[in-house]
Amino acid sequence: MKTFFEIVHKEKTARTGRIFTPHGSFETPAFMPVGTNATVKAMTPEEVKETGAEIILNNAYHLYLRPGRELVKKMGGLHKFMHWDGPILTDSGGFQVYSLAPLRKIDPDGVTFRSHLDGAEHRFTPESVMQLENDLGADIIMCFDECTPYPVTPEYAAQSVDMTTRWAERCLQTHKNENQALFGIVQGGIYPDLREISANDLVALGFPGYAVGGLMVGEEKENTWDICKTVCDILPENAPHYLMGVGTPEDFLNGIACGIDMFDCVVPTRLARNSHFLTWNGRVSVKQAQYREEERPPDEQCPCYCCRNYTLAYIRHLFLAGEILASRLATIHNLTFFQQFMKRCRDEIAKGTFFEFSQNFMTHMKI
Amino acid sequence: MKTFFEIVHKEKTARTGRIFTPHGSFETPAFMPVGTNATVKAMTPEEVKETGAEIILNNAYHLYLRPGRELVKKMGGLHKFMHWDGPILTDSGGFQVYSLAPLRKIDPDGVTFRSHLDGAEHRFTPESVMQLENDLGADIIMCFDECTPYPVTPEYAAQSVDMTTRWAERCLQTHKNENQALFGIVQGGIYPDLREISANDLVALGFPGYAVGGLMVGEEKENTWDICKTVCDILPENAPHYLMGVGTPEDFLNGIACGIDMFDCVVPTRLARNSHFLTWNGRVSVKQAQYREEERPPDEQCPCYCCRNYTLAYIRHLFLAGEILASRLATIHNLTFFQQFMKRCRDEIAKGTFFEFSQNFMTHMKI
Repeated sequence: MKTFFEIVHKEKTARTGRIFTPHGSFETPAFMPVGTNATVKAMTPEEVKETGAEIILNNAYHLYLRPGRELVKKMGGLHKFMHWDGPILTDSGGFQVYSLAPLRKIDPDGVTFRSHLDGAEHRFTPESVMQLENDLGADIIMCFDECTPYPVTPEYAAQSVDMTTRWAERCLQTHKNENQALFGIVQGGIYPDLREISANDLVALGFPGYAVGGLMVGEEKENTWDICKTVCDILPENAPHYLMGVGTPEDFLNGIACGIDMFDCVVPTRLARNSHFLTWNGRVSVKQAQYREEERPPDEQCPCYCCRNYTLAYIRHLFLAGEILASRLATIHNLTFFQQFMKRCRDEIAKGTFFEFSQNFMTHMKI
Repeated sequence: MKTFFEIVHKEKTARTGRIFTPHGSFETPAFMPVGTNATVKAMTPEEVKETGAEIILNNAYHLYLRPGRELVKKMGGLHKFMHWDGPILTDSGGFQVYSLAPLRKIDPDGVTFRSHLDGAEHRFTPESVMQLENDLGADIIMCFDECTPYPVTPEYAAQSVDMTTRWAERCLQTHKNENQALFGIVQGGIYPDLREISANDLVALGFPGYAVGGLMVGEEKENTWDICKTVCDILPENAPHYLMGVGTPEDFLNGIACGIDMFDCVVPTRLARNSHFLTWNGRVSVKQAQYREEERPPDEQCPCYCCRNYTLAYIRHLFLAGEILASRLATIHNLTFFQQFMKRCRDEIAKGTFFEFSQNFMTHMKI
């Protein structure tokens, strides 16, 4: 059997490693830029690669609605469709369906929901989502789960964990494509006992990788990391651990300390389009008047195309004029910064100084 | 004295040549992409260069209002500000002021107008526009002129030609920067006698290059080319002839036949953002249902990044999803097509087959 995940360095619970897929391998801890509609907003795939990203995430729910799984399949799958030849992960739509709260109805067999685009009724079941993710053709795919809101009663959360496990089992039974690694998703809200049940149940089913879902949905950050740690301690060490929908550099440090290997988040791309640059020296909100005549780039140490070639004064002008290039430059920078940050974390783990670096960063930096 | 313009090939009235500027030379006939706000919309300068463009146009009026001439000057001029190291031409704002009709008042000394951005009152005179264009620092700058509307009475047009000549004289007297070539602008509406007066007066003043302004403002196309020919026949052969704000491939053929060497237009970039691709086989409006499953690119013969890597089905999806990459890909393609078209014209002139090519194109193609 081919190796899917190998651990390279360890420092206490933090680790670096490599995940192998049919479209190449990627180093962990990894940050995956989000390409909701089969495009990382404002970027070409070549530019995404130049930021250092080795894997991207696409949203199964969005692609199901538009352009539809059949079209993507007909066009040769996501890689060919969007001209990205590296690894792709698709989420299962569980989180998007959760976000549609007033528009969806959950039953033990699946979820009936209305499209956020046109209100048309659709239905997802574990089986239909496996079909969807198989047609999209990503390298890593996610089980269909229920992402519970915060707050949620322990009774509801317990029932939901039970259902998510049964759905995971159905996903596993349906999934036949050996080119796709299917990950289980641990749920259970902020209840450690439910998280333990969920994690143990999924581990018993046996997946090549596991995700921690249902966090960062409004709970206290303290709860987030307690739960994350609880789950990672149960998950097999030799499988990758993916913390879904997270986050900021500070979150990465906390997650990596728990034993997380993969992250994804819209933060860098969304903040970019709203004119915010994330740097080692903090956040630069370029529309501020203080940058009107600033001849320096967003970050003088940054190796990205934006920082090498443009002044804050020019970028500010582009944002005020509503120019597309503004979003492009900011996205290039933010994604590069996130990749640089992740690389720094990997390097620190390799040196055995990650926890020191982390403490130092959190004491002195606020991004 | 350094050569500014050299003619390389001639076929009847059509010619190819080269214009030399402090930021490099460019081949003529040339198409200049428009970078209104010191950015060719949706593109990086490197991408603009990759389309084959050797010179771009920036709008003095827009840059005067935002970010302002003082900021651009402080940032080292337009080239440095926008990270474009090739030749730049700035228009004088005459056309923009003309477009502001209800917001402006013309007097013999200059124009008082209100900003389209915030309604604030401003004033342009030939002297202030020379200061503006000098501060912006383009390689080729334009005289401040009055662009008369269509229709216009011969009385008004005659008066306006007279004023435009006097303004041209004032521009010439004010302009001292040897790194900038100042072009005169011929006006006179659709009246051949007024065009003759205007052209002769400007030639008597003596400029390194001349533009034909005030065309394509609503007049019959037949008038456009009659006037264009009338003016080109008067202008010195050894100076470049620039037809402002034009146009489409068909317009290029007509203009080149008159002896035009330079063109600029927002058509390729604006149509691109509205999902229209211009190709040798006609216009491809990618949102149409017929392209839903189209695996071919917009133009299989096109060497651009878009056509090399993307299907119409994917590009259509991007436009329907409102993704920035859609505008980017279409802009890359359209600008490449315009540059390829211009290169083809130059090649045909070199071979002495331009008029044949032109007739053939106009008979068989409609773009």
